[in-house]
Amino acid sequence: MEKLKKYISVKDEDQFYHQGAVELLVFNFLLILTILTIWLFKNHRFRFLHETGGAMLYGLVMGLIIRYATKASDVDSGTVYECEKLKSGPSTLLINITNQVYEYQYKREISHHNVNGHQGNAMLQKMTFDPSIFFNILLPPIIFHAGYSLKKRHFFRNLGSILTYAFLGTAISCIVIGLIMYGFVKAMLHIGQLKGWEFHFTDCLFFGSLMSATDPVTVLAIFHELHVDTDLYTLLFGESVLNDAVAIVLTYSISIYSPKENPNVFDAAAFFQSVGNFLGIFAGSFAMGSSYAVVTALISFMHLTKFTKLCEFPMLETGLFFLLSWSAFLSAEATGLTGIVAVLFCGVTQAHYTYNNLSPDSKMRTKQLFEFMNFLAENVIFCYMGLALFTFQNHIFNPLFIFGAFVAVFVARAFNIYPLSFLLNLGRKQKIPRNFQHMMMFSGLRGAIAFALAIRDTESQPKQMMFTTALLIVFFTVWVFGGGTTPMLTWLQIRVGIDPDEDLKAEAANQTASNLDKNTTKTESAWLFRIWYGFDHRYLKPILTHAGPPLTTTLPEWCTPVARLLTSPSAYGDQLKDDGTDYIINNDELTENYESSAHIPGPAQDRTGFTQATSKEDIHEGDLGLGGYELQLEHTAGQPQMNSLA
Amino acid sequence: MEKLKKYISVKDEDQFYHQGAVELLVFNFLLILTILTIWLFKNHRFRFLHETGGAMLYGLVMGLIIRYATKASDVDSGTVYECEKLKSGPSTLLINITNQVYEYQYKREISHHNVNGHQGNAMLQKMTFDPSIFFNILLPPIIFHAGYSLKKRHFFRNLGSILTYAFLGTAISCIVIGLIMYGFVKAMLHIGQLKGWEFHFTDCLFFGSLMSATDPVTVLAIFHELHVDTDLYTLLFGESVLNDAVAIVLTYSISIYSPKENPNVFDAAAFFQSVGNFLGIFAGSFAMGSSYAVVTALISFMHLTKFTKLCEFPMLETGLFFLLSWSAFLSAEATGLTGIVAVLFCGVTQAHYTYNNLSPDSKMRTKQLFEFMNFLAENVIFCYMGLALFTFQNHIFNPLFIFGAFVAVFVARAFNIYPLSFLLNLGRKQKIPRNFQHMMMFSGLRGAIAFALAIRDTESQPKQMMFTTALLIVFFTVWVFGGGTTPMLTWLQIRVGIDPDEDLKAEAANQTASNLDKNTTKTESAWLFRIWYGFDHRYLKPILTHAGPPLTTTLPEWCTPVARLLTSPSAYGDQLKDDGTDYIINNDELTENYESSAHIPGPAQDRTGFTQATSKEDIHEGDLGLGGYELQLEHTAGQPQMNSLA
Repeated sequence: MEKLKKYISVKDEDQFYHQGAVELLVFNFLLILTILTIWLFKNHRFRFLHETGGAMLYGLVMGLIIRYATKASDVDSGTVYECEKLKSGPSTLLINITNQVYEYQYKREISHHNVNGHQGNAMLQKMTFDPSIFFNILLPPIIFHAGYSLKKRHFFRNLGSILTYAFLGTAISCIVIGLIMYGFVKAMLHIGQLKGWEFHFTDCLFFGSLMSATDPVTVLAIFHELHVDTDLYTLLFGESVLNDAVAIVLTYSISIYSPKENPNVFDAAAFFQSVGNFLGIFAGSFAMGSSYAVVTALISFMHLTKFTKLCEFPMLETGLFFLLSWSAFLSAEATGLTGIVAVLFCGVTQAHYTYNNLSPDSKMRTKQLFEFMNFLAENVIFCYMGLALFTFQNHIFNPLFIFGAFVAVFVARAFNIYPLSFLLNLGRKQKIPRNFQHMMMFSGLRGAIAFALAIRDTESQPKQMMFTTALLIVFFTVWVFGGGTTPMLTWLQIRVGIDPDEDLKAEAANQTASNLDKNTTKTESAWLFRIWYGFDHRYLKPILTHAGPPLTTTLPEWCTPVARLLTSPSAYGDQLKDDGTDYIINNDELTENYESSAHIPGPAQDRTGFTQATSKEDIHEGDLGLGGYELQLEHTAGQPQMNSLA
Repeated sequence: MEKLKKYISVKDEDQFYHQGAVELLVFNFLLILTILTIWLFKNHRFRFLHETGGAMLYGLVMGLIIRYATKASDVDSGTVYECEKLKSGPSTLLINITNQVYEYQYKREISHHNVNGHQGNAMLQKMTFDPSIFFNILLPPIIFHAGYSLKKRHFFRNLGSILTYAFLGTAISCIVIGLIMYGFVKAMLHIGQLKGWEFHFTDCLFFGSLMSATDPVTVLAIFHELHVDTDLYTLLFGESVLNDAVAIVLTYSISIYSPKENPNVFDAAAFFQSVGNFLGIFAGSFAMGSSYAVVTALISFMHLTKFTKLCEFPMLETGLFFLLSWSAFLSAEATGLTGIVAVLFCGVTQAHYTYNNLSPDSKMRTKQLFEFMNFLAENVIFCYMGLALFTFQNHIFNPLFIFGAFVAVFVARAFNIYPLSFLLNLGRKQKIPRNFQHMMMFSGLRGAIAFALAIRDTESQPKQMMFTTALLIVFFTVWVFGGGTTPMLTWLQIRVGIDPDEDLKAEAANQTASNLDKNTTKTESAWLFRIWYGFDHRYLKPILTHAGPPLTTTLPEWCTPVARLLTSPSAYGDQLKDDGTDYIINNDELTENYESSAHIPGPAQDRTGFTQATSKEDIHEGDLGLGGYELQLEHTAGQPQMNSLA
């Protein structure tokens, strides 16, 4: 008897394992299908459906099948039990049922109105996995990859514009969506919908902030494939990356905005606390992410000083790189900051410093690893979005709210792009043309972040309605706007097929010809950025990487002993290869430029070759579009040091 | 008020996310520490501690800290609640506590004796994660990697011995441990321990089967580093890989062995059912794994026929490879087979067929990806083992049982290795020397699989005692035997520093000299294997890869149209590069051998070069240690076809 019971219990347990396997298998199957479809499409140069759109479509079909082909198995659920002895909800509940003790794990608190929504279909319940999986497992690799693959040169050339769109633009978008939605909600209340709901202006702003995260992954993939103008690509990519970070922190700040009294009355103290929260969390996450990257850079840098070489063990190097980057995310989460923001800036900093220190093998490995993880995570999320339409059990479809949201999203995008572009064009040397603005307007797709933010809290009815609406907006923008990218490019007459290296070459030639002419910088130039660049190039890069000029030339004379200690021996020779340059596009092209224009083909000799090295660097500086200002700084600082050594 | 409540609920939820982050951060921190330590050790050529041993040590220390530095937070747990209305345990329990509905997820059934063991320390509970994570997430990459990196040539040369050790040896080990433990259990009952426990012979056999899975990862790493004799390496590696599969299926078969009446009386029907289960599950899992690999091979093979080329998109190719391999695991689990066994044979088959079809980029990517996943998963498991000693809350330390288990494990290993080696040496041309046998005896380390099998069921008291004992045996063998590998090698005077290519070259030279001499095969030769090899080489390889002879030469004449369709155009030219050869060791060495010995340096011309190609292949065949038998088969089948084409 006891044996038999045990036998049954083993069976049950196995059933449990198998259940987990079935769910994962469904996702695997969907991803395999997506890959095969995309392969087919790529071969037929069919660009109307990106892999993410395909994944979403298959997810939708699968969700439909699961919803209507599986039946409710668990008759018991939907029933609420009473337990008089319990006074609060413990994290683990031990319960005695017919003389057997069962262990139950606390999952969540649910509102009374959601109780009936539970249809007791175990398959559906298993399919809608914990939202924390999105935030802890699926999003970090996507965001890290975005930071790690940022095309730095173009990014920094357009930094001012990108920051404007990302910070100011997201704020505008959030407020505009919030206001419009508030209007719609008022109207809905007026006609008698939403009875008994609590729906404040802050809820509308919450919706506005989560809908402000753009994710033009489809558009960017097509841009990349068609070699669309690099500046347009960079503006869009940079905006979407940073605006995710802004939207996440904004959403969090709004969700913890808690006015003391009437929530409909503006509470200045609570407002400023929210602003303070926003700034604190953003800055803290930024600092957390960058410091992990700096630690990684320092560890991987050691192999050039008298420390042992980590780069001889690419597996350990890659492992350390991966674990430290992930730790940046986790530490930020553990300390109450925003992991996604931390991991973004960790990625940017890793690419800027650590990447230069890695062995060639590890460079390859890390790039491919994160590319692969990004690919998988992205497609899983989009599959899941498709699934969620049918498997999520508490959807609230409200036509008026959905209509309002569509209007709000497009109006807000227009209020973001056009006025800001106008303002930016006042300051930019190379204007953002009209057709670029239209394209940016058109590329306001919503994707993984908006979805992840919406699914994080689906407890109350307003949040459920927001989730449903966000999901529909994602579907619409990804399929319609994503699919319409190629026709739109043609219609707006945007140049395609541009070789980014061509662009660079022309620029480099231009720079070499008029080296000290300030006006040759192609786009904008911000004084803040110049100071940062000078500092980074002269102090941080030499300390953290083996690129850049030797510290002995950049630090004041009295620091020479320290500088000698910190400078890697190869810095003296390697400085030509310094790269604020782009590592995704191969920089051989660029090196050629130096070689041909600098007339000195060999590497600079150890200490006697300073003047050669400096002259080469000038060209490099110019190539970065920083003009003569930077150069003069370099000369005045470098000269006395050189004399003292000569 | 509602707002405030919501505010608190958001806080709670965030607390939850952060909690998850803290646990992961602990693992990250341990892994980082492990990597840094190993880096240090590798530099000082300190071989007494392998990374897995280090990970375990750090885990142990961290477990100690968590155990004694964190305090019980949840006062409520340990209390069992009654609910009269509940008749069975639903998978989701909705419970009304002070007018709030909470959702609880079914976790497991626990025995009454375990209720008090719950000390309510949330940190400890979170740290001891679900055993299904081991089976669904951590083990598959390790096992797949083992299969994928099998050194095929050496493996097949020693196939008979490896299969003997793996199947017969594991069965012997299981029975010997079972018998000895049964003796100890009887003795313990006699002296009054284990009062009121159900402890049958099948439980002892269960323990025997889970302790029969050897995991000499430490030893193999040292062998690899010191270039120990390749045959010894292969015997040990092959044994450990296959014996994992055998042990897992054996454990499962024993756990579902259910005699109808008295469990202490031998029930022939139930016994044969268990044997049938074992065979069925093993064969089914094997078939499942291989068929997924064959599908992958076929898909990736398509790029040589008129289908479009998948290899131009290495990301898609890698993704598909990864997902299909994982699906093999999941499908096996979902259909009630053993995923681990399926994924092992999937790995072997992928390496044998699919690997040849991949683009060079994907070859690199897949190898590095699985290597990396293996590295991480292995170290996480070993960290976790260290942690488990202090964080697992239901340990039962029984000195007599532990002593008995240590004795049983070593006696069983001796009963496995020495008699089987004696028997094998009767049939082997190249004997397994005494010192190799001692080394194999010494390398009976226990590791990840034994642990994962033990933790899978820790509900009853006997199982808890087994888990504790298994954990201690893993600690002991990994640290003591793992650390003692280098001294042991010296003491047993086993040759180190052998270049595997040297070995091959000598052999190849030998083969070239006496091509038709059957007796030159270095080790064993099994008729079964020869038939399989011939079939594989002549039919499967040409269909599934673009290696091997064109099907037009191997199939009967009437099949020619079909054969032409199935043979890739490049098969005619590429057949020289056929590889039953080893891909981990670079096979340039080998190609050189062909070139120098075949006197024909250029590639064979498309259709006119058949005779050249065949002659080159002969040498290759010889190199595989299959002697003249194979060659004659090749000639008789190949000749008429050639004539018909000439």
